[in-house]
Amino acid sequence: MQSANWHSTRVNLILFEPTELGRPLPRQDPRAQHLCDVLRRRPGDTFDVGVVDGPRGKGTLLEVGAEALTLSFVWGAPLPPLDPLELLVGLPRPQTARKILQEATTLGVTALHFVVTERGEPQYAQSTLWSSGEWRRHVLAGAAQAFDPRLPLVTWGQTLAATIATRLPPAAENASVDPPRLLALDNYEASVRFGACEIGPARRVILALGPERGWGPGDRAELRRHGFTLAHLGERVLRAETAVVAALAILRARSGLI
Amino acid sequence: MQSANWHSTRVNLILFEPTELGRPLPRQDPRAQHLCDVLRRRPGDTFDVGVVDGPRGKGTLLEVGAEALTLSFVWGAPLPPLDPLELLVGLPRPQTARKILQEATTLGVTALHFVVTERGEPQYAQSTLWSSGEWRRHVLAGAAQAFDPRLPLVTWGQTLAATIATRLPPAAENASVDPPRLLALDNYEASVRFGACEIGPARRVILALGPERGWGPGDRAELRRHGFTLAHLGERVLRAETAVVAALAILRARSGLI
Repeated sequence: MQSANWHSTRVNLILFEPTELGRPLPRQDPRAQHLCDVLRRRPGDTFDVGVVDGPRGKGTLLEVGAEALTLSFVWGAPLPPLDPLELLVGLPRPQTARKILQEATTLGVTALHFVVTERGEPQYAQSTLWSSGEWRRHVLAGAAQAFDPRLPLVTWGQTLAATIATRLPPAAENASVDPPRLLALDNYEASVRFGACEIGPARRVILALGPERGWGPGDRAELRRHGFTLAHLGERVLRAETAVVAALAILRARSGLI
Repeated sequence: MQSANWHSTRVNLILFEPTELGRPLPRQDPRAQHLCDVLRRRPGDTFDVGVVDGPRGKGTLLEVGAEALTLSFVWGAPLPPLDPLELLVGLPRPQTARKILQEATTLGVTALHFVVTERGEPQYAQSTLWSSGEWRRHVLAGAAQAFDPRLPLVTWGQTLAATIATRLPPAAENASVDPPRLLALDNYEASVRFGACEIGPARRVILALGPERGWGPGDRAELRRHGFTLAHLGERVLRAETAVVAALAILRARSGLI
């Protein structure tokens, strides 16, 4: 739970699932250990809390029992919705996926889709990162870091085409809503640099990033058919997780959030 | 040496110091092992190379001896200079410094100063990261990743004031040269969001980022006295290394490089 927050005297938010709020917190729960041993809270002390996908608030440590802590909570107003920013990523190796899950959540993406592409390694979808539910730990860590309890929607193992079809309703149905801005990072067939791509009036952005070996011709055809602009991040070769942070930061700056 | 390059079939650049070029490469050198075991190069095969702070080129594996590899090189034209982009960071814990050394180099900073500030932990400067020279490994890894053999200037353990004084000549001397754009990240006393800061015509940018506990009042006075604009990165709390990548990406996009 501990991390080096830049420029903040706040410790990370301590997150609870909605179903946990009425119950005592077992002493062996990592959050209980964090509260008592790292934050050194004593009965009567308060701390910052959030409900997963709910509000932030203040917790009070009421009692430290042999088996469990008794806590009480006061909740703030609901948080205003985040601007929709969805990330489609070609399934990376699990170690890279962990970093992207955490960093993209910290930067406030609203959905994160790890998709199967032509040149991806399909076996990455079989990792225990996904099957054991471990992925959610990294998302929770990113949310706690950002001091925002809202989690992105996360999917994995669907094809690029199926994911685009799910996220983009057919053009006919789409006519009545603001079309999203569709951007795909591509170092080989980009027509424009990423930093020069205007977002325009779109309130929703979908950003696609290929797998380690890049997009295949079928992937590119699929992206172009749906109206994605292919853009590059310059001449320097970045790791996937660095490219994610760089591109999301540029988009968030464009939207006036950074 | 291996990493998950996003969207590149290129492997990382293999870097040599200028003094190493005439000599055989010992078999136990990590680069020899990487060439033979990971890249599976055989006599006659080529690979991408760079000279530290020099050109890129092609290497050829001539012979695999019992003790050493014999290599030959063909060098390209000198690389055009990088736009000056200097980073001043309040000395972070060593684990964070390692990430910043690598990521900032990958993103092409030309200088990296880890400075002593009012609220920093001065003992971080005593870490073996600095005294053993380990820091240079992370810079080399960042350069190899970026496919660019040029390394930033790195300093550590000097005060913020001393570093600014070294990097910014007095105003009188400075009158004849383009003044650099001076930006400091600050989540508490920022007057403007970072994404709204224009770079203007400045070709040189100096970006300052405080230590984990933030700038102290004396640090801020020093920054303001020299003309730094205090800017914030929005409401979400970022780790120091994420803030570095986000801010550098936004600056590089402003300069037309991303």
